[in-house]
Amino acid sequence: MKLATLRTSGGRTTAALATGDDTYVALPASDVGAFLGLENWRALAESAEGEALTAPDFAALLPHAGKVICCGLNYGDHIREMGRELPEYPTLFAKYADTLLGANDAVEIRGSGRVDWEAELAVVVGSELYQADVDQAREAIAGYTVANDVSMRDWQSRTLQWFQGKAWDATTPVGPVMVTPDEAGEEFQVRGYVNGELVQDGNTRTLVFSPAQLLSYISQFTVLRPGDLVLTGTPGGVGMGMNPPRFLQDGDILVTEIGGIGRLENTFRIHAPVPATA
Amino acid sequence: MKLATLRTSGGRTTAALATGDDTYVALPASDVGAFLGLENWRALAESAEGEALTAPDFAALLPHAGKVICCGLNYGDHIREMGRELPEYPTLFAKYADTLLGANDAVEIRGSGRVDWEAELAVVVGSELYQADVDQAREAIAGYTVANDVSMRDWQSRTLQWFQGKAWDATTPVGPVMVTPDEAGEEFQVRGYVNGELVQDGNTRTLVFSPAQLLSYISQFTVLRPGDLVLTGTPGGVGMGMNPPRFLQDGDILVTEIGGIGRLENTFRIHAPVPATA
Repeated sequence: MKLATLRTSGGRTTAALATGDDTYVALPASDVGAFLGLENWRALAESAEGEALTAPDFAALLPHAGKVICCGLNYGDHIREMGRELPEYPTLFAKYADTLLGANDAVEIRGSGRVDWEAELAVVVGSELYQADVDQAREAIAGYTVANDVSMRDWQSRTLQWFQGKAWDATTPVGPVMVTPDEAGEEFQVRGYVNGELVQDGNTRTLVFSPAQLLSYISQFTVLRPGDLVLTGTPGGVGMGMNPPRFLQDGDILVTEIGGIGRLENTFRIHAPVPATA
Repeated sequence: MKLATLRTSGGRTTAALATGDDTYVALPASDVGAFLGLENWRALAESAEGEALTAPDFAALLPHAGKVICCGLNYGDHIREMGRELPEYPTLFAKYADTLLGANDAVEIRGSGRVDWEAELAVVVGSELYQADVDQAREAIAGYTVANDVSMRDWQSRTLQWFQGKAWDATTPVGPVMVTPDEAGEEFQVRGYVNGELVQDGNTRTLVFSPAQLLSYISQFTVLRPGDLVLTGTPGGVGMGMNPPRFLQDGDILVTEIGGIGRLENTFRIHAPVPATA
């Protein structure tokens, strides 16, 4: 099953179930995160009926995710392009739901001149997890989606901690749908394109830490809840790793695609940098 | 004025106004964060009346804070003890509200053998801020409180990103009260004690980035809202900086104190480490 968060009228959104290509039916929650918080969400989705919603306008899949936890340095090829060694532990950092936006939304950037892409498989949590083992974590995966952990490299490299380059509001597209594991399979080809040129192309079979391992690891110190989102890292091919480095320009179109899940297409509006205040 | 979040019966909490030493009156919100979300919170607090609440049981001051953003390396003396240079930009990282707990709560740790202290002044946001200058940021400060950014150094040092050593649920005491700027003043002596021994003693006049500068800087990339919390960094004297390094033991009592604001007193329960799963 495929779930989405669709914009409706008056600035509202609804969770929705895909019933065909570009056809949806509304579900009884305002977004996929709220829907996954309903104990019987699977049964509700299986029995969903109503008016067909067409021409979907995708909101951020999880506009109110309590936690959006990202893993860096998780593909062997990307680790090598960044000049690092294979890690013993996952490198984790946090962002907030304000960073998220819809699958086809424009990304507006004010204040960075080094805007880079990171195509990623993202995992949606379906049930509460705390100090869980890997099998429990696998059972708690509600589904998979597509994300791009767009990164402001100038800000990211200002200090040792990446947060300020990663946590810009409305810069991380996510969606268009969450696909449940029974439909999605277990291996994913993750691709990124800039203005139609393939720049990233990796397979999740080369992940150092699998989705279930990441969820289990994170749950050792913090609870994960339905609707939380974990980004699993990006394969090789980011702009910063190119020689010379390459960054997104005003008007560029970034496509992020995972076979069997979906496709993000985001136009970038990059405004002149503003000076920092501190 | 001094505001607190107090536990009442049945697992509930209420925002409350201090009317005397250890005497409070309830305010019309479940916690200080929700109270600051009310447009007329200052007037509501000034006119609060009702039954006196005594023997306060402090919950985490902001149990549902949308953002808890921390600054590292912000006191000259702490920067030097960590072997670093004075920074041009604030080092920022994020945690979630699940990390917070009450001023006198026990801190339970399972899985770390290197539990360290970081006494900090924390700033509570009182109105929405986005791309604000320093004056606007100063106006948006609702008040100040006391926090201890308790850090699991073994996990913190596993990777380049500190998140996994900083974001353990229910390990960051915060409170007991938020004091508004008119009562709190502008300079604060931040002290930490382990079993009665003074281990940290710094003054916020030596901060590299002031509270208002931090709020302004953060607001350049993400919106801050009423009830969000910003931790301003810790002065010298953390256990990791000692020779030999010193960490909290089972049964230790950590006191964190800021003159004019308040005092946290937390007993640590440190259980045998569990092996990591990844």
